[in-house]
Amino acid sequence: MNRYLDMVDHPSHVKKLTQEQLGQLAGEIRHELITKLAKNGGHLGPNLGVVELTLALHRVFSTPQDKFVWDVSHQSYVHKLLTGRKNRFETIRTTGGLNGFSLRTESEHDCYGAGHAGTALSAALGMCAARDQRGSDENVVCIFGDAALTNGISFEGLNNIAHTTRRFIGILNDNEWSIAKNVGAISSYLNKLITNPRYNQFQRDVERLVKRMPKGSLAIKLGHKAEEALKSAFAEVAMEQNADRLEADGRGGHGSSLIFEEMGLRYLGPIDGHDLPLLISSLEYAKTSDMPVVLHVLTKKGKGYEAALNFPEKFHGLGPYDPVTGDTPAVKPGTPPNYQDVFGQTMVKLCQKDNSIVGITAAMPSGTGLKALEKAMPRRYYDVGIAEEHAVLFAAGMATMGFHPVCAIYSTFLQRAYDCIVHDVALQDLPVIFCMDRAGLSANDGPTHHGLFDIA
Amino acid sequence: MNRYLDMVDHPSHVKKLTQEQLGQLAGEIRHELITKLAKNGGHLGPNLGVVELTLALHRVFSTPQDKFVWDVSHQSYVHKLLTGRKNRFETIRTTGGLNGFSLRTESEHDCYGAGHAGTALSAALGMCAARDQRGSDENVVCIFGDAALTNGISFEGLNNIAHTTRRFIGILNDNEWSIAKNVGAISSYLNKLITNPRYNQFQRDVERLVKRMPKGSLAIKLGHKAEEALKSAFAEVAMEQNADRLEADGRGGHGSSLIFEEMGLRYLGPIDGHDLPLLISSLEYAKTSDMPVVLHVLTKKGKGYEAALNFPEKFHGLGPYDPVTGDTPAVKPGTPPNYQDVFGQTMVKLCQKDNSIVGITAAMPSGTGLKALEKAMPRRYYDVGIAEEHAVLFAAGMATMGFHPVCAIYSTFLQRAYDCIVHDVALQDLPVIFCMDRAGLSANDGPTHHGLFDIA
Repeated sequence: MNRYLDMVDHPSHVKKLTQEQLGQLAGEIRHELITKLAKNGGHLGPNLGVVELTLALHRVFSTPQDKFVWDVSHQSYVHKLLTGRKNRFETIRTTGGLNGFSLRTESEHDCYGAGHAGTALSAALGMCAARDQRGSDENVVCIFGDAALTNGISFEGLNNIAHTTRRFIGILNDNEWSIAKNVGAISSYLNKLITNPRYNQFQRDVERLVKRMPKGSLAIKLGHKAEEALKSAFAEVAMEQNADRLEADGRGGHGSSLIFEEMGLRYLGPIDGHDLPLLISSLEYAKTSDMPVVLHVLTKKGKGYEAALNFPEKFHGLGPYDPVTGDTPAVKPGTPPNYQDVFGQTMVKLCQKDNSIVGITAAMPSGTGLKALEKAMPRRYYDVGIAEEHAVLFAAGMATMGFHPVCAIYSTFLQRAYDCIVHDVALQDLPVIFCMDRAGLSANDGPTHHGLFDIA
Repeated sequence: MNRYLDMVDHPSHVKKLTQEQLGQLAGEIRHELITKLAKNGGHLGPNLGVVELTLALHRVFSTPQDKFVWDVSHQSYVHKLLTGRKNRFETIRTTGGLNGFSLRTESEHDCYGAGHAGTALSAALGMCAARDQRGSDENVVCIFGDAALTNGISFEGLNNIAHTTRRFIGILNDNEWSIAKNVGAISSYLNKLITNPRYNQFQRDVERLVKRMPKGSLAIKLGHKAEEALKSAFAEVAMEQNADRLEADGRGGHGSSLIFEEMGLRYLGPIDGHDLPLLISSLEYAKTSDMPVVLHVLTKKGKGYEAALNFPEKFHGLGPYDPVTGDTPAVKPGTPPNYQDVFGQTMVKLCQKDNSIVGITAAMPSGTGLKALEKAMPRRYYDVGIAEEHAVLFAAGMATMGFHPVCAIYSTFLQRAYDCIVHDVALQDLPVIFCMDRAGLSANDGPTHHGLFDIA
């Protein structure tokens, strides 16, 4: 049925397909995701967005020798399909079935497990350090979303890369969404990069090079000589860009503009994350770099599935749905309302009665139910991004001024803010209210999402 | 004895002194710090560095209406001396005496307590949000060190400022040190700012304006009309700078170069943090800004005390010392070696025997004893900055590649990495070794440094 997917039992098989065949494989994978997840649900939208990226990664790199570290790793379903787990794919997120995240015990191709955001850059850097210590030469590729950059740990990681290793490949998978639409300065900053004509130059350069290649071939399939030529052409492009920039700086400028470059990484991009030849060539180039790089890839959450494109927040992660229409089952009359809806409505009522109450969420307006407050009283609602520590400290700051902030954070994610709760709220005896949702076992998401360590 | 310090029982008294008198007060404060701390020790170096800055802050702003949020707050001794606590100053860090950090219950001038790094930006932003909610107009000033920027929470805070409030005053107190010398990309980046001639322009502009003022007067003491003139002159300078930058961008550039500006804050500086008139004028300017600002202030840890200037790490925080020579008491023969020295030497021996062992510290090479490893085997030693979460994740990444990383982190600070220990190390069953120092009560530092919540 799946002509090409059936042929892929190991990621090395991806390397044997032609460009046209890879395009068809991408279509088959999308179909597989949409139909197989319909029964039990899952992180559909994010995975539809990384089909081409994951194919390109497996085309250019070779796991398990090379390491892919997925941030959060809810977007690693395509990776699972390509690494010998396609026959068990419909068991995902069920008891005894595949885990919905990367899991070291599940496959040698999963080098790192996750579930919470912001861990990938630091963990991948640890792998680079280990590689450099032992003098081996595998590639470590860290795939992180723009949402991960709203989390402080990612910055701690970025701050440490350049002086720790010369070989680090970061892929910024930028879809402008975390679970809800992203917030904050970093998000605006990335948008500015995307719309800046100067930086589209990288994509045009790579496209020009791809066009010059023999028809139907891909960088990886060129003979050694052609490959060398490609690399040196790339290097020239990069040097010219650098020269332009230096010249601009000389004319009254300063350092270079990019946060990543200030952090000591070479910035490549942005490029279209659904253009397979472009992705492959860009990754080939990144692979040759003798300094840490970050490749900025623009993807569309839900790509190839109209329902998911229209409702990206709903399709980030959902329960069962109709694979054709995307409809989710109607709530049966008489079903009691769920916790988060009751909570959201209650918050609205409380805020209407008491001016000192505000609601704070860390990128989960729908999951926590605070979306109701956002709609009813937007000025009393704060979404701070995936930044649980900041959320708690921000609440503590407001509490010192007589407010009663309500932090609505899932139990599993509040673990992030453990020190802030002890050091800033409890020690200072401040009236911050924590509403922890999803305490206890989280059956579908598995161990990383269990809320077993609630703070008493 | 202290002619001017004796006159200051409330910060409003600082506003009554002339520029010359303020300079003499600065000298008296330094003398007070050096002599009074000699008996029991304390954070001498950092406080010697912020004498002029603290005077300028109290000159321009008025606590307790205005809020000063000190990051870590070990550098708030001068603030304590100026806010009615000078007579109890020699009790600092003793039972029943003054706390070594900001403490809400100690004074109405301490609006926020701290002890751990990286909390100030988020907490101060919470105060700004509270002020904006209730429509009052106090100033919120957040004083944070360059070391705080190696901590991820500071970035979560920065990411949220610009879309949350229009009035936020950040003071980057840059002394190039956390406890040890700072590490990482942010540290190199700040150095680049300091040495860039373009950005010294701000200091020259302010100096020029200060020179034009009537002799002996300060911005705050000018009549209303003169003050307005000063503000508009400042605004013109700022606009010119902005125009320069836009022009440079048009010539092939991109956004502006500064990380702070990319984050939506107006960057002012860098300026000499020991030049009182310059500090006062710059703060006056910052106070008028209708968008969030960060003023980059260069200070010298230990300023005015030769021993502390020569040994900044030792004088960051220390026990009793001789106020004249700076000598600390010699260790009595027969005293058993302390924990961290034994630990450091043991780490060296273990690393020599076993290639898979590495040592990781979060900005505490001396405190943890890992400095011995740095000296003996620098390639097996990692200092990641004040970034406990990154430290644990980095260790987890190395552990996936067969290494046995040893994380040496004080018990109180490891609370920061609680989620990483659960989610990344324990759940993945990775061989990361935690060596928690300073467990139990921390008598001198007080509650924020107790290690009561060790992870079992």
